[in-house]
Amino acid sequence: MINVGVLGATGAVGQRFVQLLANHPWFELTTLTASERSAGKPYGRVVNWRVDAPFPETVADRIVSPTTVEAVKDLDIVFSALPADIAKTLEMDIADAGVIVCSNASSHRMDPKVPLLIAEINPEHIGLIDLQHDSGRDGCIVTNPNCSTIMLTSSLAPLLPLGISGVTVATLQAISGAGFDGIPGMAIFDNVIPYIGSEEEKMESEPKKILGTFNGAEIEPASFPISASCNRVPVIDGHLMSIWIDADYGVAEAKNAFARWRPPFSGLPTQPEETLHIFEEPDRPQTRLDRNRGNGMTVSIGRIRDGIRYTAMGHNTIRGAAGSSVLNAELLKTKGYI
Amino acid sequence: MINVGVLGATGAVGQRFVQLLANHPWFELTTLTASERSAGKPYGRVVNWRVDAPFPETVADRIVSPTTVEAVKDLDIVFSALPADIAKTLEMDIADAGVIVCSNASSHRMDPKVPLLIAEINPEHIGLIDLQHDSGRDGCIVTNPNCSTIMLTSSLAPLLPLGISGVTVATLQAISGAGFDGIPGMAIFDNVIPYIGSEEEKMESEPKKILGTFNGAEIEPASFPISASCNRVPVIDGHLMSIWIDADYGVAEAKNAFARWRPPFSGLPTQPEETLHIFEEPDRPQTRLDRNRGNGMTVSIGRIRDGIRYTAMGHNTIRGAAGSSVLNAELLKTKGYI
Amino acid sequence: MINVGVLGATGAVGQRFVQLLANHPWFELTTLTASERSAGKPYGRVVNWRVDAPFPETVADRIVSPTTVEAVKDLDIVFSALPADIAKTLEMDIADAGVIVCSNASSHRMDPKVPLLIAEINPEHIGLIDLQHDSGRDGCIVTNPNCSTIMLTSSLAPLLPLGISGVTVATLQAISGAGFDGIPGMAIFDNVIPYIGSEEEKMESEPKKILGTFNGAEIEPASFPISASCNRVPVIDGHLMSIWIDADYGVAEAKNAFARWRPPFSGLPTQPEETLHIFEEPDRPQTRLDRNRGNGMTVSIGRIRDGIRYTAMGHNTIRGAAGSSVLNAELLKTKGYI
Amino acid sequence: MINVGVLGATGAVGQRFVQLLANHPWFELTTLTASERSAGKPYGRVVNWRVDAPFPETVADRIVSPTTVEAVKDLDIVFSALPADIAKTLEMDIADAGVIVCSNASSHRMDPKVPLLIAEINPEHIGLIDLQHDSGRDGCIVTNPNCSTIMLTSSLAPLLPLGISGVTVATLQAISGAGFDGIPGMAIFDNVIPYIGSEEEKMESEPKKILGTFNGAEIEPASFPISASCNRVPVIDGHLMSIWIDADYGVAEAKNAFARWRPPFSGLPTQPEETLHIFEEPDRPQTRLDRNRGNGMTVSIGRIRDGIRYTAMGHNTIRGAAGSSVLNAELLKTKGYI
Repeated sequence: MINVGVLGATGAVGQRFVQLLANHPWFELTTLTASERSAGKPYGRVVNWRVDAPFPETVADRIVSPTTVEAVKDLDIVFSALPADIAKTLEMDIADAGVIVCSNASSHRMDPKVPLLIAEINPEHIGLIDLQHDSGRDGCIVTNPNCSTIMLTSSLAPLLPLGISGVTVATLQAISGAGFDGIPGMAIFDNVIPYIGSEEEKMESEPKKILGTFNGAEIEPASFPISASCNRVPVIDGHLMSIWIDADYGVAEAKNAFARWRPPFSGLPTQPEETLHIFEEPDRPQTRLDRNRGNGMTVSIGRIRDGIRYTAMGHNTIRGAAGSSVLNAELLKTKGYI
Repeated sequence: MINVGVLGATGAVGQRFVQLLANHPWFELTTLTASERSAGKPYGRVVNWRVDAPFPETVADRIVSPTTVEAVKDLDIVFSALPADIAKTLEMDIADAGVIVCSNASSHRMDPKVPLLIAEINPEHIGLIDLQHDSGRDGCIVTNPNCSTIMLTSSLAPLLPLGISGVTVATLQAISGAGFDGIPGMAIFDNVIPYIGSEEEKMESEPKKILGTFNGAEIEPASFPISASCNRVPVIDGHLMSIWIDADYGVAEAKNAFARWRPPFSGLPTQPEETLHIFEEPDRPQTRLDRNRGNGMTVSIGRIRDGIRYTAMGHNTIRGAAGSSVLNAELLKTKGYI
Repeated sequence: MINVGVLGATGAVGQRFVQLLANHPWFELTTLTASERSAGKPYGRVVNWRVDAPFPETVADRIVSPTTVEAVKDLDIVFSALPADIAKTLEMDIADAGVIVCSNASSHRMDPKVPLLIAEINPEHIGLIDLQHDSGRDGCIVTNPNCSTIMLTSSLAPLLPLGISGVTVATLQAISGAGFDGIPGMAIFDNVIPYIGSEEEKMESEPKKILGTFNGAEIEPASFPISASCNRVPVIDGHLMSIWIDADYGVAEAKNAFARWRPPFSGLPTQPEETLHIFEEPDRPQTRLDRNRGNGMTVSIGRIRDGIRYTAMGHNTIRGAAGSSVLNAELLKTKGYI
Repeated sequence: MINVGVLGATGAVGQRFVQLLANHPWFELTTLTASERSAGKPYGRVVNWRVDAPFPETVADRIVSPTTVEAVKDLDIVFSALPADIAKTLEMDIADAGVIVCSNASSHRMDPKVPLLIAEINPEHIGLIDLQHDSGRDGCIVTNPNCSTIMLTSSLAPLLPLGISGVTVATLQAISGAGFDGIPGMAIFDNVIPYIGSEEEKMESEPKKILGTFNGAEIEPASFPISASCNRVPVIDGHLMSIWIDADYGVAEAKNAFARWRPPFSGLPTQPEETLHIFEEPDRPQTRLDRNRGNGMTVSIGRIRDGIRYTAMGHNTIRGAAGSSVLNAELLKTKGYI
């Protein structure tokens, strides 16, 4: 078994990591870190479990560690659910200490030597890890993209070979994206908030790196422009988006590309049967009905029509965060990095 | 006083008409029509009042009429909240009988001789009424656009002089737009439905007629293409939309155009102080906080930024339906048509 | 394998039956009935699947039968999700034809010879089936109680030996209790409706039969009065209730009774590990966080305090309907009735 | 005009005070206090206005004062929306300085010399002010009850002459009761929380003081016991409650008492036409439909039936907080205390 830990295990994304790792066939979840206040106490006592899946009793008595290099330096992998500001230097220190850091934080996503990885979309970017090793780092940092970016970029992959001249996207994002305490009930009930801090910037830059070409030395980013407008809507989980593609092919060709696309590998433990599910029904995907498809790991796509326009939707804290990060780690394992 | 009636007075839009007309300074609400089942009974007994404003007791004892030409032929104006299929011939018959029909139904919006009117945006289209008179009709039909169209088109007006090459719009629409019983709670709770029947078609055609040029004989429609993706979100009232404009000017020019735009007239009873309210705050307009601005008649605009992108929002059953129709009737009065 | 069918398989409770039976270890789901309109077509095509669990593909091609005696007379068991008015005579005819009818309908719950059964609470009432057989019926009808009744009555069972002089209960019930189309979104968003038709009457009578004594010939109902006030609240699934017990013992004794209570048997496939889960936390159970406990079959109880007062909560369409009915059938099997 | 101020003018209740006072016919709102951080800046710049009524522009440029005795000592009245811990000594100091403090804070509600006042229910308790004066205080403190207490107690007043032997109440309370940032969206969406800190204690003690007898020297509290279970439900505004009364009279008598009850005075500016509105409809009051009755100052009562049981509902931040406090001040004015 491979020993793994979760940095920031009591937060919204941290709890998802714990849920996904508690019974993982390859990974043994041995270490849970949290703030000083919680360190030294049993996880079951300090966590306010709010994932709508049963609490994994196997980790109830695990003593919480402080969030330090020392606490995790002997692990094979740590999954990071840390806030960006804390992640910044700590993740580098942990990677330098020889640990593989699979991070959901935004701090290192755009670092030239750090893979910004969606396992089924750009697995070849994993080669950037060698550059980290070459520069003297014993471990490495691998990041997954922003939650909305994952849905958007996964949906763009099948069209990429046909050509993409530009992307316009309006998002309808769930409140869980802001963390458990991120949005007051009074702020979002019966309301739409047409603004999510830094979200549009991420959606307009991250996909270009992910869909860029790795030549062995660096990533040549994709060149098409992306224009995003992000909205918060009153749903618990699931980010839905209306997407337009500037393209010189027709709907039939686009539909065909979606229908034929297959991920480059299959069978990893956290990988869903369908990376993309294509709906023919005129009114799908819908957030509540489809977010749990493939245990929350499938990105659902529908309403492909002239424009080229379509709708994409996925579970923001599973496919859009913890689940994608765990899948990245599984890919690293199959590629011999662990 | 001008005698007016409401066709279909017990439905969602019908109740809004009654609310807006019960204490109108110019119009005397004398006639309320509904289905055969309700006809002959006091309005206060048959209506299931669900507008979140107090029931106007002055109409409680008014006996409901059947929805027929006979019932309204002696009125000056009828406001129609009828379903499109019923409105189709009945509104023509009523207009032929000499009554001004201000209709919220979609049936006649695209008729070449029928004004599709947003009072402050294209008041000159009112001249189409003369063509109806010329063709032998004693009364006339005047329509207001689809709810989402009203918000979108009102927001386009200031930019029109600068040039619009294309419009892309994603909507986040309230459940009241489907009527009281239109959407089951189970269907929309904690959910987004990325489809609203016929809505995109309306949004892609109606604005071009409204922003078209009237040369005295017909409307030359605006030529830019519109691409709409419509989503239903779990809010009660208020349609918000993310809008992109293809344009060759910059944000500063666009902002300037919004800031300087003024409606061509002011002071009508149902007209708000501001037809458009321009927000500088980065996170406004918000649906719940801003939908009642100007008694629900103001269209709020914000987040104007490069792209050109912005957000528009308005109250769908007031500015987007009954309120705009009443304002149209007020304009007709000032123009001498009543 | 035991051949089973579902009557009314396309509705809200019918879909839950299908979900629970599609992969049942003892029961083979061979027959799905629906209205004439759907009969003759594949289930996967006529059902609008709205359970938030994946559609069981194994039944997708099953041809839907009409809801008749003929269609199900060769089955061992049918589960009925029919409306009460249709269930009334049809369930009797099917039972007369030799089939065991496990019904969620209210029609026969108070029939003197029909068990009103919560498997873990009053399994001995199953003996009423013999009276049905004695009266010449080849099959039998077994009913489960109203959804709110199940939560309330399950929570009363541990206290019954200590004595119950009276029960006062206020419910906060989910919208799924009214079926998929039962409550318009406009009616329940941001709202509480303090009325649910016939619900209070059921809650005030059914628990007395369930907690009554079966002497081999009839049920002597429990004698304490129940006073219920039922409210609909804007949550999807899960009925929560505030309960007061008139009693002459203290909180410590009541807590002790809850802590020690165990169901009279264990290990049935649909039975949860805990029939009752007792919370010590001051703010639990909560509807969204706890409704899926025990796959939706556990009734959660908390806030036991002087009064005697406490809070109970359970999943209304699983423990409160289809799940309890399937568990009843499992009990019948172990008792040799199948 | 009478000069008034608001302590804590930027919070949820503070904003309601500002809304109700900005155009008050008797009171001139001259002073707005907030934390040190906001002091010295214009109110319109520091307040994040979230009341769903238009921001009163007349106070936009008012410079915010620090929350000190010095800032308000020359006013006639201050309305306090302070947290209980800050209110404790500061309100006493302000009252000692000669100002009338109308407080929504809980700190002094149970002080023997402080009126706990619902203007139409126990106006004679105002006499306690004389005891404060006698003890050397130049001003005085007058409090209004907890929000849920106001609805409950107002509904009990008509029954008091018939006799009340006990009260059982389950509440369904809105999220605005916890302040703007009180409850995270993730915590309350699609959920019921069966616990509100200190709420049950307040509901079980405050009504007895309010309905007690003032003999000129002290309040003899009402003697009946109250048992409350408080639940938070996902609605924005409006507290609804299911109430049971232990009584030896019948429903007809109770209904009669409700129908005949009238407040002891009428015509104060903030007083609604109906202090209590009695519904005959079987499914009213409903939270969203009825909370704004009487500008949010009417308590709605319905479903009076055997038990004696009924439902009561009112707007928690208007009748349940700021509105009741302003009405108390108006009563003081008519009684010559200002």
